[in-house]
Amino acid sequence: MAPRFTVSYYVRAADEAEARARALDIALEQTVEIPRDVVPKGYVEDEILGKLEALVKDPDGRPGYLASISYSEDDVGGDFLQFLNIVFGNSSIKPGLKVENIGLSKGILALCPGPKHGIAGLRQRAGIGAQPLLMSAIKPVGLSSAELAQRAHDFALGGMHFVKDDHGLVDQRTSPFAERLAACVDAVGDANAKGGGQASFVPNITASAKELFERAIMAQEAGAGGVMISPALAGYDVIHTLASDPDFTLPIVSHPAFSGANVVSPETGFSHRCFYGALQRLMGADAAIYPNFGGRFGFTREECQSIAKACADDMGGPKAIVPAPGGGMNLGRVPEMRDAYGNDVMYLIGGALLQDTDIVSASRRIVEAVAR
Amino acid sequence: MAPRFTVSYYVRAADEAEARARALDIALEQTVEIPRDVVPKGYVEDEILGKLEALVKDPDGRPGYLASISYSEDDVGGDFLQFLNIVFGNSSIKPGLKVENIGLSKGILALCPGPKHGIAGLRQRAGIGAQPLLMSAIKPVGLSSAELAQRAHDFALGGMHFVKDDHGLVDQRTSPFAERLAACVDAVGDANAKGGGQASFVPNITASAKELFERAIMAQEAGAGGVMISPALAGYDVIHTLASDPDFTLPIVSHPAFSGANVVSPETGFSHRCFYGALQRLMGADAAIYPNFGGRFGFTREECQSIAKACADDMGGPKAIVPAPGGGMNLGRVPEMRDAYGNDVMYLIGGALLQDTDIVSASRRIVEAVAR
Repeated sequence: MAPRFTVSYYVRAADEAEARARALDIALEQTVEIPRDVVPKGYVEDEILGKLEALVKDPDGRPGYLASISYSEDDVGGDFLQFLNIVFGNSSIKPGLKVENIGLSKGILALCPGPKHGIAGLRQRAGIGAQPLLMSAIKPVGLSSAELAQRAHDFALGGMHFVKDDHGLVDQRTSPFAERLAACVDAVGDANAKGGGQASFVPNITASAKELFERAIMAQEAGAGGVMISPALAGYDVIHTLASDPDFTLPIVSHPAFSGANVVSPETGFSHRCFYGALQRLMGADAAIYPNFGGRFGFTREECQSIAKACADDMGGPKAIVPAPGGGMNLGRVPEMRDAYGNDVMYLIGGALLQDTDIVSASRRIVEAVAR
Repeated sequence: MAPRFTVSYYVRAADEAEARARALDIALEQTVEIPRDVVPKGYVEDEILGKLEALVKDPDGRPGYLASISYSEDDVGGDFLQFLNIVFGNSSIKPGLKVENIGLSKGILALCPGPKHGIAGLRQRAGIGAQPLLMSAIKPVGLSSAELAQRAHDFALGGMHFVKDDHGLVDQRTSPFAERLAACVDAVGDANAKGGGQASFVPNITASAKELFERAIMAQEAGAGGVMISPALAGYDVIHTLASDPDFTLPIVSHPAFSGANVVSPETGFSHRCFYGALQRLMGADAAIYPNFGGRFGFTREECQSIAKACADDMGGPKAIVPAPGGGMNLGRVPEMRDAYGNDVMYLIGGALLQDTDIVSASRRIVEAVAR
């Protein structure tokens, strides 16, 4: 028998009998996808078919149960997307079903070496100790590369550790990718030379499958300090592929664009901590952006804290990464944020700084308040 | 001004004022992602910023409004993923918001040439006229390539037009991709030679970004009759890239694995017709698999019919594709299915046939019943 990994699902059900029937259905659906009575005896039934390992009332008080189902590493076949497909492929389409947690096995940990840098590597790159990291975004789409580079310069001079592209900046004619990359790396370098900082520029390389990998190489060769990818758009394997590539050395920032439906509905998709925490680490992201509580989105403080915890928990292998809450951060909220997240966090601050006529000073004020 | 495309969103709201505020927020969030008061005057405000074009009470009686928002082709920058990002990137994370429809513009149609074959091409390949197509899946994972090829042979001899891999078959040691591909193409070829049919084998090529394209070429060179991809796992650009590649000539079947959260929640994600119909055509899929009503999933007859309609509607460019409902099909349901779908459909029939000890005869009975 091959080692098995486990997935724990919240299953809406009126009683235990219904929950058990639904759980056994998941075990079939996610593996053999044929009626139970025609599952071949022997290897397929004993090894490949999912096994219901435990079934308990939902500890969070939802109207259902937690079903823990184990799957064989043999079914994964060394394929990261097939791993995700076993976790939640077809069952994602069934209502009242949510992935709560994933319990790893040795083979899955070998398949998912995790991020190259993690929070420790990002801090080292930024030249700081055990304090929060800060990241800003240049925007909006429609500005020229020169205008965007000026913003990158100002954020860097103001002390931001990372300056990233807005996730909507791709290769628009107003600011083509290669031109913006060169201009922003230069601008951040100038600011570092002037101010003595170690800011890094992080371009958005989300693009078609082939272009994404070309842009990753361009970013590395141009002297960028990381790359950003939206995995829910570009595919759940691209970060995994880049993080596993020994020739690619930059940190990877994961952006949540297009991922919302996987999380916001209380009874479908994934738990917040599993999607924005565990999955990001398994893919190999070094920083996971998600919407902060109290901002423009509806996540609660507890949901955000559960993500931060999942970024740092001992997974038996992958390095701790940095949770990067975006939205809703400003000077006045620094104490509240410190209370919620402690030091192991990267604050993503964009719009609030652009509302100031002096981006450099506005950045400095927030950098100082956070470091205090 | 560049031409604009429009997206119509269902917006949950207590009254028109709230709906308008939420709609204007979408227009900001999906384009400039900065506070309204700092949107640069001129090109950014006039061209890039989303525009609220219409706001009406939801015609389907849900507690909210339909907001139609237009976006500039300039913001897309010729990038298919950026197009999807504008449609629903960050706003996917906001609850009570659903993409209902997308209204195309000339530039988007140029970016999305659509499928190469469509339903007409699939029928031509199968050698049939205006009747329903039939597809079966070889499974389960864990069988050897020889055993799976035997099933492929029997389905083909029984008259199925397409025989596909189960979407969980990748490169497991029990049936490595290359070995299974060769064995199944051979087996289906033998059955065609014996029975006079024109069945095609369709391997699952969902894999890491680089392997997926290698397997597409392998499939074409080996004589497969199509490929299957799960875009919600592999990324929303891979089908688009393959369908746009003049050197790749096989039909593409889209599988819904991992996509469920985008659709099943009534107030998040996409409408059924938009996700499993319109988006699949824009990507360039020739056939779109989705869960049939009355099967193991919860879609209603009306939702399934709306998908089928969206596969065939005049979009101003992309060919009509074939809706491929899976699950719940058997001999007894043929009249009900004919009534729901008419002729422009591809029935995906798997488990029910495997429950028969004689797959060839079981396939023949369903093929005859559907063609009658």
